[in-house]
Amino acid sequence: MNATDIQPVFSVNMLDRMDVLRPDILDNRHPDTDKYLLLSKGNVLLNSNKQCFMSAAELPQTLLMDALCVFLGGVDGIHYFALSLSPELAEQYEAIPLRAFVTAESVPNEQFGLLAEANSVVSWHHSHAYCSRCGTKSVPAYGGWRRDCPSCGAQHFPRTDPVVIMLVTHGDQCLLGRSYNFPEKRYSCLAGFMEPGETFEQAARRELWEESGVKGGAVHFVLNQPWPFPSNLMIGVHVEAQTTDLTIDLKELQDAMWVSKNEIKAALLGDQTLPFIVAPKEAIARNLLEYWVS
Amino acid sequence: MNATDIQPVFSVNMLDRMDVLRPDILDNRHPDTDKYLLLSKGNVLLNSNKQCFMSAAELPQTLLMDALCVFLGGVDGIHYFALSLSPELAEQYEAIPLRAFVTAESVPNEQFGLLAEANSVVSWHHSHAYCSRCGTKSVPAYGGWRRDCPSCGAQHFPRTDPVVIMLVTHGDQCLLGRSYNFPEKRYSCLAGFMEPGETFEQAARRELWEESGVKGGAVHFVLNQPWPFPSNLMIGVHVEAQTTDLTIDLKELQDAMWVSKNEIKAALLGDQTLPFIVAPKEAIARNLLEYWVS
Repeated sequence: MNATDIQPVFSVNMLDRMDVLRPDILDNRHPDTDKYLLLSKGNVLLNSNKQCFMSAAELPQTLLMDALCVFLGGVDGIHYFALSLSPELAEQYEAIPLRAFVTAESVPNEQFGLLAEANSVVSWHHSHAYCSRCGTKSVPAYGGWRRDCPSCGAQHFPRTDPVVIMLVTHGDQCLLGRSYNFPEKRYSCLAGFMEPGETFEQAARRELWEESGVKGGAVHFVLNQPWPFPSNLMIGVHVEAQTTDLTIDLKELQDAMWVSKNEIKAALLGDQTLPFIVAPKEAIARNLLEYWVS
Repeated sequence: MNATDIQPVFSVNMLDRMDVLRPDILDNRHPDTDKYLLLSKGNVLLNSNKQCFMSAAELPQTLLMDALCVFLGGVDGIHYFALSLSPELAEQYEAIPLRAFVTAESVPNEQFGLLAEANSVVSWHHSHAYCSRCGTKSVPAYGGWRRDCPSCGAQHFPRTDPVVIMLVTHGDQCLLGRSYNFPEKRYSCLAGFMEPGETFEQAARRELWEESGVKGGAVHFVLNQPWPFPSNLMIGVHVEAQTTDLTIDLKELQDAMWVSKNEIKAALLGDQTLPFIVAPKEAIARNLLEYWVS
């Protein structure tokens, strides 16, 4: 399997983001055709028909006027917006955590990118309500894609945090680690936030060394994925390990171990008799393992 | 030439970042061996010997105690720190803009990564002095790698902005654009900030379409580079164009044009008779062109 044949979850978006419309779109909506996605604290809200896209007609006018609104883009002449609701306003809807929502079989692949886009930008507004330059409360602008400071004039743009996630191999063996918050038996690829001034390669070798004591050699890019929890960019790389002894950083990882390619193959097929299970389909870690065994 | 044979400027760092030392290092300095890099508003400061690394002994004690200080890492038993100086305090030193400093032949390649790391983190402190969650003035922590809010308790980490920069080709032709702020005759690869919820591939096609009206097809990752002005991660990709007609977004670009591989080869060799010149050695755009013609 080529890496380019793999489509990680969240990597398909049916929308054209239509940047050119952003400056004026919130004042030029089309109540008859616009669609709204309601979010509240990382939850997708569903109407009584279990649908996540709602028309203007089924929403209270005050919500349309007052809630934080982000223009997501358009397709087939229909414009899509995200609305952010307070927990109180969200109470009248069924709320499903985004990650559970995308793992439900009912959501088509082409909607995942839209959901990632919406949750990342809305989350950013909530964690960036104040100007980081001067401390003044900032205001949404540019169709929800900017926050402007009324005091110092600074313009702030949504933040995306690059993360390296690593398929680490040594011959026929692959290194998997276990975080403290993982479900029982789950092991996955090591990962970590990139730091300013780093390349993918440097970040991967640094994180691998810090977390496991393994020395990394050659690093190759494999594939990437937006990860909207809240707004990461997962950069999947293959690291060829130069050493295999493990010195686990127990502040970061509960455990780590080398497993064979045959064990990974069996785990991907759902073998429950192994001492570990691998990441679910929405995780790029699983895509990296699929790439390796194919 | 393989992409892996190319080392973009800023992509080599002589330091081990030594994350494990960060919590306590600023209170446990070694005045006899520590080295300090002084920065002020994007300038590297030089001492009277034209050196950018200074010992504790040659710096005022008040500066060592009071200036914003970031632990950069260590090599050969020596720890390196960045100090941020106000313009007033910087007056006694020779100041050189970072970009001019790295293009001077006197700086060894292995120091570039350190300079990128230092300028990005120091710049982040200045643009993020206040908590984006509640507006309170935050304080540096963790060896300069975090800012903590004394009011709401939020922890803030340095920001890195991913940017896609594109080698766009159609057969033997390559698309170059000209920004309004470029030096005379300079043309370079199109580029743009990635947005939340996007893949490299989506961001490249979107930016290409927005800026030039060209429809992008297959997108392949080529190489990456930290770009500390102030803190970008340049993700160099190859986009195979499906169309060639240009509709230039004149808000973003002054001009764009298709040029042949032979013209690019001549431009890389310094041919001044062409209607354009290409990016200088420190820019990944030049590396992308070198990759293409080789």
